[in-house]
Amino acid sequence: MTVALVGAGPGDPGLITVRGLELLRSCDVLVFDRLVSDDLVEEAPPEAVRMSRELLDQSEINDLLVGLGRSGLAVVRLKGGDPFVFGRGGEEALALSAAGVPFEVVPGVSALAAVPGAAGIPVTHRGLAQSVTLATAHGEDGGKPDYEALARSGGTLVLFMGLGRLGELAAGLIAAGLAPAIPSAVISRGTLADQKAVTAPLDEIAKAAAGLRSPALLVVGEVVSLSEALRSAGAVLAGTG
Amino acid sequence: MTVALVGAGPGDPGLITVRGLELLRSCDVLVFDRLVSDDLVEEAPPEAVRMSRELLDQSEINDLLVGLGRSGLAVVRLKGGDPFVFGRGGEEALALSAAGVPFEVVPGVSALAAVPGAAGIPVTHRGLAQSVTLATAHGEDGGKPDYEALARSGGTLVLFMGLGRLGELAAGLIAAGLAPAIPSAVISRGTLADQKAVTAPLDEIAKAAAGLRSPALLVVGEVVSLSEALRSAGAVLAGTG
Repeated sequence: MTVALVGAGPGDPGLITVRGLELLRSCDVLVFDRLVSDDLVEEAPPEAVRMSRELLDQSEINDLLVGLGRSGLAVVRLKGGDPFVFGRGGEEALALSAAGVPFEVVPGVSALAAVPGAAGIPVTHRGLAQSVTLATAHGEDGGKPDYEALARSGGTLVLFMGLGRLGELAAGLIAAGLAPAIPSAVISRGTLADQKAVTAPLDEIAKAAAGLRSPALLVVGEVVSLSEALRSAGAVLAGTG
Repeated sequence: MTVALVGAGPGDPGLITVRGLELLRSCDVLVFDRLVSDDLVEEAPPEAVRMSRELLDQSEINDLLVGLGRSGLAVVRLKGGDPFVFGRGGEEALALSAAGVPFEVVPGVSALAAVPGAAGIPVTHRGLAQSVTLATAHGEDGGKPDYEALARSGGTLVLFMGLGRLGELAAGLIAAGLAPAIPSAVISRGTLADQKAVTAPLDEIAKAAAGLRSPALLVVGEVVSLSEALRSAGAVLAGTG
């Protein structure tokens, strides 16, 4: 195996998988995303080459991985969350596949349930939510998300987003038919030691979240109402212990 | 900490988190689900008490965890996938919280992206799917899922289901407006050594999946069309290596 696309998990370095850590500890080259924890970057062998992908665009990354893969080195491409959930891992895998470079995909814990969970919010719960829809705050080519489809989903919504678009998102969902009073939460830096979460009705969530830091998730749905009970009783949720 | 609700991941024992394995290796009591890998059950210390939850209903499990938690023992409740994604972890956490028993939630890799990924299907992909909706094949109280909402989602659908209901599910989605020709896949025993995946148009998927074993996932959406390319080139996807 030459290139492994590895999910780093949602933030807390303890949430990488055992298989992912094993590959990371034996790699020759590590190519990592900006949001990956420094603690994980340090898990690579001392002599391994470490490359941040920050200055590269997606096609440059693809080319880099193909080139490294052809060299026969053990390459780990460490991506936040899961490579196949808004991680563009599919694009990297297709490039490797087209070039005939053997690769492995190691899934990771996606922020989608782990980050709400770390704020005491189960994304599904009997009697409250039978489905979950996951989207980003921007549609194809940076346009609007499909607010109508999101508003009609009938289940929990989890939206990956920049905090700057929160007011626009909430207004778009309400205009498309979601109740202004539906319980909502924004979780900033979920599973990390400096995690912050706020809850409010959807029409007040942007105000409530003012001043929070990226990365952040918006969760909309009745399951948010469980968070108060689940954060009591000395609960230690991921990354806060 | 007394009770830890730990996600075991999608099947392959290497896909548990580092934190989850650490707790498992130091527990006094392990309470595990039927679908959890034997290899993980063996990771508990030799002297730990191992209890399968198979013969207990959900309220009995909740009571058991509260009782064990009050004893001060280090209890690991190991659940397939992620505790908060159709795992009823919220119910266990609420019971612990109401009883004042300290608990920790350790998220896991959910089958939702890992199992499609192991069959070469990224659940999101630029140009093909901007959102993912996750549901079970049965609605509240064992009724039908909300086919209309699922059919209108506009993104990838991932459905946790028993294989016996596959024909009914596909027909329900088509009756609600999904194109009969939309690419679909069923993945049986995803990420395990005996994983099997079949792809077909939605109106033929039940026939294509005849004879597969549980557990299984149905994936519906254009992203399924990537699986052929992603399974070539010597790709090793989770659990198949």
